[in-house]
Amino acid sequence: METAFNGDRKRPLDSIKPEDQDVPANLVIVPEREPQLAYVPLKTGLCYDVRMRYHAKIFTSYFEYIDPHPEDPRRIYRIYKILAENGLITDPTLSGRDQIGDLMVKIPVREASAEEILLVHTPEHLRFIESTQQMTKEELMEHTDKGDSVYFNNDSLLSAKLSCGGAIEACKAVVEGRVKNALAVVRPPGHHAEPDAPGGFCLFSNVAVAAKSILASYPESVRRIVIVDWDVHHGNGTQKAFFDDPRVLYISLHRYEHGKYYPGTKAGGADQVGSGAGEGFNVNIPWPVGGVGDADYMYAFNRVIMPVCHEFAPDLVIISSGFDAADGDIIGGCHVSPAGYGHMTHALKSLAKGNLCVVLEGGYNLDAIASSALRVAKVLLGEPPEELKSVQLKTETIEVIDDVIKIQSQYWKTLKPGYDGQDFSKPNIMGDYDGLVEKLGAVSFEEMAGKGLKVSDAIRAYQKEELFEKRHFVPLPILTEKLPHSSSLRDLVLCSPDVYETDKLVIVVHDSARVWARRDPVTGTLDSASAVVVDQSLRFLDWALEQQYGVVDINVPLSISGSEDAQYNNISSAQDVLLYLWDHYIQYFKVSKIAFVGVGDAYNGVVHLCGHRDVRGLVKCSVNYLDRATALRAIVSSIDESVVDWFYQNSLVFTAAKHPCWGDVEKNGSSKRPRKKYGRVLRADVEGVDNIIEERLEEGCDFIQDSLEDYDSDSE
Amino acid sequence: METAFNGDRKRPLDSIKPEDQDVPANLVIVPEREPQLAYVPLKTGLCYDVRMRYHAKIFTSYFEYIDPHPEDPRRIYRIYKILAENGLITDPTLSGRDQIGDLMVKIPVREASAEEILLVHTPEHLRFIESTQQMTKEELMEHTDKGDSVYFNNDSLLSAKLSCGGAIEACKAVVEGRVKNALAVVRPPGHHAEPDAPGGFCLFSNVAVAAKSILASYPESVRRIVIVDWDVHHGNGTQKAFFDDPRVLYISLHRYEHGKYYPGTKAGGADQVGSGAGEGFNVNIPWPVGGVGDADYMYAFNRVIMPVCHEFAPDLVIISSGFDAADGDIIGGCHVSPAGYGHMTHALKSLAKGNLCVVLEGGYNLDAIASSALRVAKVLLGEPPEELKSVQLKTETIEVIDDVIKIQSQYWKTLKPGYDGQDFSKPNIMGDYDGLVEKLGAVSFEEMAGKGLKVSDAIRAYQKEELFEKRHFVPLPILTEKLPHSSSLRDLVLCSPDVYETDKLVIVVHDSARVWARRDPVTGTLDSASAVVVDQSLRFLDWALEQQYGVVDINVPLSISGSEDAQYNNISSAQDVLLYLWDHYIQYFKVSKIAFVGVGDAYNGVVHLCGHRDVRGLVKCSVNYLDRATALRAIVSSIDESVVDWFYQNSLVFTAAKHPCWGDVEKNGSSKRPRKKYGRVLRADVEGVDNIIEERLEEGCDFIQDSLEDYDSDSE
Repeated sequence: METAFNGDRKRPLDSIKPEDQDVPANLVIVPEREPQLAYVPLKTGLCYDVRMRYHAKIFTSYFEYIDPHPEDPRRIYRIYKILAENGLITDPTLSGRDQIGDLMVKIPVREASAEEILLVHTPEHLRFIESTQQMTKEELMEHTDKGDSVYFNNDSLLSAKLSCGGAIEACKAVVEGRVKNALAVVRPPGHHAEPDAPGGFCLFSNVAVAAKSILASYPESVRRIVIVDWDVHHGNGTQKAFFDDPRVLYISLHRYEHGKYYPGTKAGGADQVGSGAGEGFNVNIPWPVGGVGDADYMYAFNRVIMPVCHEFAPDLVIISSGFDAADGDIIGGCHVSPAGYGHMTHALKSLAKGNLCVVLEGGYNLDAIASSALRVAKVLLGEPPEELKSVQLKTETIEVIDDVIKIQSQYWKTLKPGYDGQDFSKPNIMGDYDGLVEKLGAVSFEEMAGKGLKVSDAIRAYQKEELFEKRHFVPLPILTEKLPHSSSLRDLVLCSPDVYETDKLVIVVHDSARVWARRDPVTGTLDSASAVVVDQSLRFLDWALEQQYGVVDINVPLSISGSEDAQYNNISSAQDVLLYLWDHYIQYFKVSKIAFVGVGDAYNGVVHLCGHRDVRGLVKCSVNYLDRATALRAIVSSIDESVVDWFYQNSLVFTAAKHPCWGDVEKNGSSKRPRKKYGRVLRADVEGVDNIIEERLEEGCDFIQDSLEDYDSDSE
Repeated sequence: METAFNGDRKRPLDSIKPEDQDVPANLVIVPEREPQLAYVPLKTGLCYDVRMRYHAKIFTSYFEYIDPHPEDPRRIYRIYKILAENGLITDPTLSGRDQIGDLMVKIPVREASAEEILLVHTPEHLRFIESTQQMTKEELMEHTDKGDSVYFNNDSLLSAKLSCGGAIEACKAVVEGRVKNALAVVRPPGHHAEPDAPGGFCLFSNVAVAAKSILASYPESVRRIVIVDWDVHHGNGTQKAFFDDPRVLYISLHRYEHGKYYPGTKAGGADQVGSGAGEGFNVNIPWPVGGVGDADYMYAFNRVIMPVCHEFAPDLVIISSGFDAADGDIIGGCHVSPAGYGHMTHALKSLAKGNLCVVLEGGYNLDAIASSALRVAKVLLGEPPEELKSVQLKTETIEVIDDVIKIQSQYWKTLKPGYDGQDFSKPNIMGDYDGLVEKLGAVSFEEMAGKGLKVSDAIRAYQKEELFEKRHFVPLPILTEKLPHSSSLRDLVLCSPDVYETDKLVIVVHDSARVWARRDPVTGTLDSASAVVVDQSLRFLDWALEQQYGVVDINVPLSISGSEDAQYNNISSAQDVLLYLWDHYIQYFKVSKIAFVGVGDAYNGVVHLCGHRDVRGLVKCSVNYLDRATALRAIVSSIDESVVDWFYQNSLVFTAAKHPCWGDVEKNGSSKRPRKKYGRVLRADVEGVDNIIEERLEEGCDFIQDSLEDYDSDSE
């Protein structure tokens, strides 16, 4: 039995003296032994072969000579060179020799076999690529012209087979434990090549072929592979190869922009989750805008990629490592730093017992890809990543990651709020965002609200009751047949009781009230004790009543209950309601001066009215408050051109600090100014329409008061 | 100018032949050079000295000899031994010799100087520890008895000074770049030692002294230090040393249990964020329960610790590395695996250019601390962490991390939803959870809702309107003076019009409706188009009306608006309302059979009534639905003992699957069964009161029908 002092435990501790403790009576001897380390003693593998530089675009003009095609043979040369310049490899002539020093080990590149290529591609596809070897220059040019962003020369086949074979050999070396990890500096890239077509500079789907080949060759030791594709473009080819395959989890971060960014389809959408047995094993993180950087990528890693990878527990991780999201790449237009690539590599090293293979994809700024690849190589060797310079997330990133979590939480329990260890194939209300609403629709108190009671309806009903009781407001009747959806619009227009008599009128047109609440992180329902209604537009009512102005309050809901919901559009509803009120009521009031307050999307109704009726005799001003989600609306006059000037002089439009009308300030340095037809557009310091009103309420009220009262003093 | 083929770019690419490409005309030569690596060539430092084993508890009984004090000298011996057994160090006699092989390098341990210790501790504290060296056994025993979980012998001073000095030297070696990182296998531990008092087995605050000393000695190169304390206990001493110091970010993960877990104060609460200049530089992650494991720790790292650390950008990271959260440590009662410690170490290696120093704190299972420390050491050397076995989070973890983010988002922009790059010292509505409610209180439409319109009020008002209009329900008047808060309780009791005449009555007592919605991840407001009211208790109304039963609907809000809010308690309100209704209405109705449905906290009213009035003549059954947040309520009869049996026979209580009444199933294997006085308690498969009703509605309705109708057929 082991005792407190290495076997010497016969005396009470306090009687043991220091001098006799160092050599206890029955000394334990631990013989010297080999370090029990599986990884540290190994080197990092490197694939590189000058023959992959032979594939190149045939020059057809002097222009192409001085401004070469971005998928340029120097791409791999420059990466190889920077490794040598930093002493990570030794190869003075950069010839791709076998002996490259003590830190890295050369993995010989070979041509992928037809059998391997056919694991992913169709025989027709392979035959076509093979045929390029014998084509005439004219044939090559013809196929280059008609392909989807690809080019061919007579060496394309060789380079593509070497690139594909290099990826396979790099993965093999990792899986067999010959290297601790590997970097395959290969081209042409692969992730856009679909099973039956080349595309996007890619001929064979290198990483897909490598993954299929590894799964076939090492069925015992490699059962699950993660492919993380951080190329700025979506890897449509890789996704397609494994869309129905649960053994390969494909995760891609890419610019998407509703499918407009290359490759220009919806395949890169967050909703593409795989199919059949592969459902839930495809994770797309589609950036809705360019300009993302380290903070955005780290957020995606922390919130989605690492938790999902831990749950998947891969045996091998392959990085489809395009460096075109790198800062300085004008094709990608993003800002990932070399340090950022280092951090992502470091994080992925923690998976699959370190079995990590990095395979080059795109990346077109030669300096950026070299310095990025250098940092990745250093981290593969064991260096820590450098410090991140920025932790500032883009707002869009928070939104898209939220969407991705919503979608993927169906498949990954670590993403599911309140995961309870139950069977997740069973539908469950908690966390099953979309399912819940449908489910409630089926079970809710039918008489109460058709398909689920909308909170916004409840709030409006309550507001109406209060305005009726406490302020003696009255409803303005809306004739159903004149206005679409009006039968579903509850308590749309409410007026102060003096509205038919008043001389000065403030008309507030606003979206539904916002609700602020903490959300229970487990069940997804709200902490109702904390839930409060946020409706700063009500402050204009208060203020206007204090000024003895008449008040009209128009609530334009964002959505409506019931079966008409699908056809409803809140912007056209705001337009319809204001035109209707103008034509049927307002011009018959005794009022002589009107001010509009537009809040949120509903502001469109004000602009529309000013363009479609000549309101200049009565309307003295409009003050509007727009969150960044509400687009600026230009006045388009059907009356005369001077309306634009009138509108500019008499309209204030306060926007969120990050409203798109101000452009990308980070990028452009200073902000542009919207044109006159949008009114006088001013920029608040905050986000969120309620916050903007909070900041600019007084300015808006002063403008209204000046407009309504100044005129008065003039006329006296 | 560089060109596509390493300077040889005069011919069109398609005319270049493979053979002449390998040796281009003007060959670039990259001379062999030293690897540009700052970290990989260095070794990992190790602090160990057998003299730290001299500090030991003086045996006072045979019991202490066979079951020694947990802070046992073998703790450091066993860690050192396992490093040797695995070949990470070479030291056959385990004597702590200077030459320990090729992988690690010995950092000589020295005694901390008085000057260093006084950087953190008071002179009185130091003098007291010094005095133990000369104390008699009796004096030592006396101080051991009266201290807070500490013991002393005549060698305690030496061991404590070595432990503290070891921590300092380990950090120095890292900061000076003599080692890539370091592991200090030291004892006694330090993090509970406060500036003026030892405690929790700790004499000097080793890590705090080391951090202060490094900041003083390397003012240029070390400006910011992160201390991550993953010991299972809160490091009250370390926290106190830097509570007002913005240079040191202290982050602790620990069992807390509302301050009941050692050290038993509120100092470890999530709300302890630092003070003065140090406000925002103290992050407590307090586990509300034991049993947490790898998934919980990784979640904390991904959601809070890594983002905050990246933003802080430390120059040095020190881990206060207790291993008492390790699986197998009975004091800690948690389940962190060696792989989990490896992953946390790997993540922290990515900070501060790898400047990482691991200092031992607690940990009392000798096997667990040895295998945990071995994994940490391997990761320090460069091995990848092992695969995590479990990704299953505890529900409590999701809740506590949500709380921590709520609190810390005031200070860390990466935690703030919708961070907009503005000045964060300025109050901002977005993301400032508590501030928002207060702010809205000040600005909201005063006449409408006192201090912010509660969503639950709006919903109840709407429900009332619908029940009035569509079902012709009537309110049951409540006399204000008889019932506390009733003036603030809106539309509390609604009845079907036949309630005074009916023979069979179903009384539904429920909490406010839940609201389900997606929360905008940027502004924190709700997506109002998706927000729906979830109130499954209404389904009982529907069902009972179909059965031609009379219906009473009682809504007991979780909180009330207005100035009385602070005194309001929803459970006592439910009790008061039911007693009032019983005494003033129900017993005068013509009804002969009553069934209660209790939903949520409001169910307490049903149990209370059954204990305080003899309802057995009329009440035939109660069916209740409880989420895990609603505690079981035992019936306590003021009438006679047989009420308990009656209650058991006639009451169903459906609880959430994870209701605490079922105990920790993971731990206990099978679940216990609640006692009879709680009624017949049944376990649903789901969480959330609405989900439980969804699952068990039919069962509840059948039980009510049997109770109301069976009696009927008997009497015929």
